[in-house]
Amino acid sequence: MIRLDATAPGFPDAFTALVNARREADDDVARNVTHIIRRVRDEGDAALADLTRLFDKHELDTTGWAIDRAECLAAWEGLPDDLRAALELAAERIAVYHAKQRPEDRDEIDAQGVRLGARWSAVDAAGIYVPGGRAAYPSSVLMNAIPAKAAGVRRLVMVTPTPNGEVNPLVLAAAHIAGVDELWRVGGAQAIAALAYGTQRIAPVDVVTGPGNAWVAEAKRQLYGVVGIDMVAGPSEIVVVADGRNDPEWIAADLLSQAEHDPTSQSILFTDDAAFADAVAAAVEAQIPQLATAATARTSWDANGAIVLVPSLSDAIPLVDRLAPEHLELACDDAEALFAQVRHAGSVFLGRHTPEAVGDYVAGPNHVLPTGRRARFASGLSVLDFMKRTSFLALDPAGLAAIGPAAVALANAEGLPAHAKSVALRLGKG
Amino acid sequence: MIRLDATAPGFPDAFTALVNARREADDDVARNVTHIIRRVRDEGDAALADLTRLFDKHELDTTGWAIDRAECLAAWEGLPDDLRAALELAAERIAVYHAKQRPEDRDEIDAQGVRLGARWSAVDAAGIYVPGGRAAYPSSVLMNAIPAKAAGVRRLVMVTPTPNGEVNPLVLAAAHIAGVDELWRVGGAQAIAALAYGTQRIAPVDVVTGPGNAWVAEAKRQLYGVVGIDMVAGPSEIVVVADGRNDPEWIAADLLSQAEHDPTSQSILFTDDAAFADAVAAAVEAQIPQLATAATARTSWDANGAIVLVPSLSDAIPLVDRLAPEHLELACDDAEALFAQVRHAGSVFLGRHTPEAVGDYVAGPNHVLPTGRRARFASGLSVLDFMKRTSFLALDPAGLAAIGPAAVALANAEGLPAHAKSVALRLGKG
Repeated sequence: MIRLDATAPGFPDAFTALVNARREADDDVARNVTHIIRRVRDEGDAALADLTRLFDKHELDTTGWAIDRAECLAAWEGLPDDLRAALELAAERIAVYHAKQRPEDRDEIDAQGVRLGARWSAVDAAGIYVPGGRAAYPSSVLMNAIPAKAAGVRRLVMVTPTPNGEVNPLVLAAAHIAGVDELWRVGGAQAIAALAYGTQRIAPVDVVTGPGNAWVAEAKRQLYGVVGIDMVAGPSEIVVVADGRNDPEWIAADLLSQAEHDPTSQSILFTDDAAFADAVAAAVEAQIPQLATAATARTSWDANGAIVLVPSLSDAIPLVDRLAPEHLELACDDAEALFAQVRHAGSVFLGRHTPEAVGDYVAGPNHVLPTGRRARFASGLSVLDFMKRTSFLALDPAGLAAIGPAAVALANAEGLPAHAKSVALRLGKG
Repeated sequence: MIRLDATAPGFPDAFTALVNARREADDDVARNVTHIIRRVRDEGDAALADLTRLFDKHELDTTGWAIDRAECLAAWEGLPDDLRAALELAAERIAVYHAKQRPEDRDEIDAQGVRLGARWSAVDAAGIYVPGGRAAYPSSVLMNAIPAKAAGVRRLVMVTPTPNGEVNPLVLAAAHIAGVDELWRVGGAQAIAALAYGTQRIAPVDVVTGPGNAWVAEAKRQLYGVVGIDMVAGPSEIVVVADGRNDPEWIAADLLSQAEHDPTSQSILFTDDAAFADAVAAAVEAQIPQLATAATARTSWDANGAIVLVPSLSDAIPLVDRLAPEHLELACDDAEALFAQVRHAGSVFLGRHTPEAVGDYVAGPNHVLPTGRRARFASGLSVLDFMKRTSFLALDPAGLAAIGPAAVALANAEGLPAHAKSVALRLGKG
């Protein structure tokens, strides 16, 4: 963890270094992923079987390629009551929030008699990636699958690695409540390639979303254009802007809730109170050893954590904008006023009683958010990622007479005579 | 050009071959582009000067790096009156159409007292690429720049190659009317890299859009994630669905308006009338020699053109959906009924008096559209490409008491104790 003081002489350079620090995996990965993608494209299921044997240590022909919906239902029914109720509450709230994101169609006729419109529709099929092992999160299943269903996707396919053949019942239960239609036991770059190109068993999809390790992220990047993807995801981050009247234990837990995700995660506190900064730093040290995730949290906090002292909380906001954080907590009295100054953040948590973790699970908005400063231009996952817009146009002879001559003039100026002719003929001037 | 009959025995395979035909440039390009991007990232303006000398045959230090706004104004004032009026009409209609795409913010409080919202904002800076040479289209300047301005982008940067140092006055005039803020005389993959990473002279931007050759498209693909991009663009295509009561000359011109763009463009006619198919094929042959773009149109039509005979126009629609064309004309009486059946198309032109070319210039909707079957999942350029959404959340103690315990249960089930603690502490249960 580094401590910075925004009024110290070396601050601008030190903060720039913090902004520009690359925490993302570098790439021999890219070459390996290219090779895996080619194999799956050319060899299909045979490549999936080989790569699953290699990476996940099981035989798909023995363990089974697919997990059927009855298994998901059984996992759902086998959950402890409190967990089933929690997943149900989360699914319901996520569904309500995302249903309201569905865009409206347009269809209007303007003063020239030109009919102009736009019609939104869902993609036919979507694939969601769910990591295995440490990051096998049922909440991610909900956050990816429910927006797809809210968009109207007819075929929703989930892929997830099952290392050593072991399935995660929580993930299956989440797939049940989220309405996943197909579930395949494949993971890694090979699973993304299978979704993009299709194999003998797995029909291709139109959009692939979901978190994954560096190989999965690189496969999505390389296959962007063959399929739609949500975003290139990098390590997670949280920025907390807090005054001295917060409980330092609460803020320490918030910082650690990001640090415990991954050694590359980042947690940054901005505060205007030096004593509070000390108290939070101490609370972090006290809490880490209590966590089952202590090793990860320790590495992340030591390597990437930061506490920045600012003259006032307002002074933090331009610095926050440079970081364009995935998550931003504004833990102060008039959080609204600070929020009005923020330009770039994936998701913002207002006030002292809105820990980021509540947004990870049950609040309703999506927890798949732009990382690595991409909130400058990107948004969280939404129904829009599973939909596309078809614009349309209808002219009658009068409408074409009104605007067609300008099209002819521009087409000729651009040296495109067939463009001009297609309009001019209909104007009786061909 | 190939002729297919949907009722013939070999049709399914022949049509599948048509759908799967790759018309996109293959890639040693990728390796060269990677190298160019690294050079620009590491060497900045020096690399731009070298690469411009190599590819565009001029010295930036002599010809000038930037084109200032006074030059754009002068180009605008120097236009013939009819062209200036045509650009003005186009700009006005495009601005009106795109202004209506601005999404609405959300801010609501639900039954549990949880405040949920989403706030849209423009990116700080956008870059638009405008090709030089054959494809230097003022209409592309309008179609890329005006949505950025409608989104509220503060800094709009244009890059365009000026081969041999020659600028295109039409492009400068369009930059004037569209409100471009900065204009740099660089092109190719090196210009995209400069926009993404910034150089000594050119500050980086957040989003890069605009058409380009295979090198530009590959640079955008490789830099996706460093900046936002609109879409990986491939060769252009048109599908026309027409009954026998159209003028074959009109339909032939429509097909050629796509074929004249590029040798890799594709034009496909579906009709239920064999005699009409013959008449269109003959009209295409008659029109090609009259075009200044004859060589390009000839190559494109011969290599990629198709006429498909279908039993009825409705039978064409599932085939059209497999092509997911960039442009789709429905030239028949009840175009509306056919359109209702279409699932995948970038932009649709309804009725006999709506040639695609009118949409290229003056109708209002964007002419930057998904190509190469990407209308299955992608949309045309819009203000959304220049905006991002920040979700937000505010809970009070009662709201957190209502939904917080479910978050604690899920966080514990996922093995993320700091997540659980950050909520539980605020519930007095830490």
